[in-house]
Amino acid sequence: MRIAILLFPGYTATDAIGPYEVLSRLPQVQLQFVAQQPGLVRSDTGFLQIECAALPPADAVDILIVPGGPNAHLPLQEATLLDWLRQVDRNSVWTVSVCTGALLLGAAGLLSGRRATTYWDDLALLSAYGANPLDQRYVFDGKYLTAAGVSAGYDMALALFERLAGTTGAMAVQLALAYDPQPPFDCGSPHKAPPALVAAVRAQLVART
Amino acid sequence: MRIAILLFPGYTATDAIGPYEVLSRLPQVQLQFVAQQPGLVRSDTGFLQIECAALPPADAVDILIVPGGPNAHLPLQEATLLDWLRQVDRNSVWTVSVCTGALLLGAAGLLSGRRATTYWDDLALLSAYGANPLDQRYVFDGKYLTAAGVSAGYDMALALFERLAGTTGAMAVQLALAYDPQPPFDCGSPHKAPPALVAAVRAQLVART
Repeated sequence: MRIAILLFPGYTATDAIGPYEVLSRLPQVQLQFVAQQPGLVRSDTGFLQIECAALPPADAVDILIVPGGPNAHLPLQEATLLDWLRQVDRNSVWTVSVCTGALLLGAAGLLSGRRATTYWDDLALLSAYGANPLDQRYVFDGKYLTAAGVSAGYDMALALFERLAGTTGAMAVQLALAYDPQPPFDCGSPHKAPPALVAAVRAQLVART
Repeated sequence: MRIAILLFPGYTATDAIGPYEVLSRLPQVQLQFVAQQPGLVRSDTGFLQIECAALPPADAVDILIVPGGPNAHLPLQEATLLDWLRQVDRNSVWTVSVCTGALLLGAAGLLSGRRATTYWDDLALLSAYGANPLDQRYVFDGKYLTAAGVSAGYDMALALFERLAGTTGAMAVQLALAYDPQPPFDCGSPHKAPPALVAAVRAQLVART
């Protein structure tokens, strides 16, 4: 399995690192971080730089993973990048997004008529690309697999690992990563958080983009 | 708050990225990935390289974060690095580890007589450094904060965020990161996983180190 994780300036690190951490443990896997401008690519906070290879040939990617970020609307303007996404998708075994990475897949026309999810505050935007937004942690539709916001990439990638390498293997990875989450609060989705908190976080999100 | 996350060749990415993702959202924060050999530092899987600055002066770090990895025993030999850890700790407001990063703190003599935790398969090793190993998701002991394996850094960092910037702020970060985990299996700790799976993962861990 050849995995390419597409980074762009302003990606959210966990969107990319969650699937990386899980899927890099597949047997015989090759995994690359890739970008339209190869070299160091800086995350949304400005504090992290990950080294990226150039975009590989479209037929050299079995699993395409597109993370998101508060600037995920910027790559939407990049016709060359959207074209690369479409070409890779023609050959991919799985086409995957985390968070607002789904908007890139949508802009490339890959989610039309499909069930998909994205960051909780951006679900409505998926409809503009002809997708059926679902408010779920992750959504399988054929070879398309979309995860909800940021940390959902861990859950999604474990589910994908199970499809690729079986339940025992996926469980082994979950144990190896000590993925027995104990979040200190029960507020990780807008359905659980107090409405005032949801409003405050929404306002921050708008301020950041 | 000036945060330094210490990387070394063979770090586990999530150990570092979990605390980064949460704590980079503190108000007026400065955060650096640093390493004894600055430049690109490669993770345990070999597939990820993060750009690191040189080790900063010991009095320029308020929060020291030490991730782990299957090779965390290697930096234990580095007298210069252990000395830097001791010097930073003299000035730090918080000294923090994730996963086997606790073994580095231990080797630097910083956990002697303290309650601490680490990766589930390495808890016994903490005793060799005079620490009191606790099988918990994260352990506070004064300014020392140690997290269990890999993914525990998210839970730990949210708890630290709460201490630094209040409950509402920490809850806002948890919601912003959509941290409402839904792991596909209930096997993320050795107490929950079937014994045969625990044995298999233990064997893999030994094979990797």
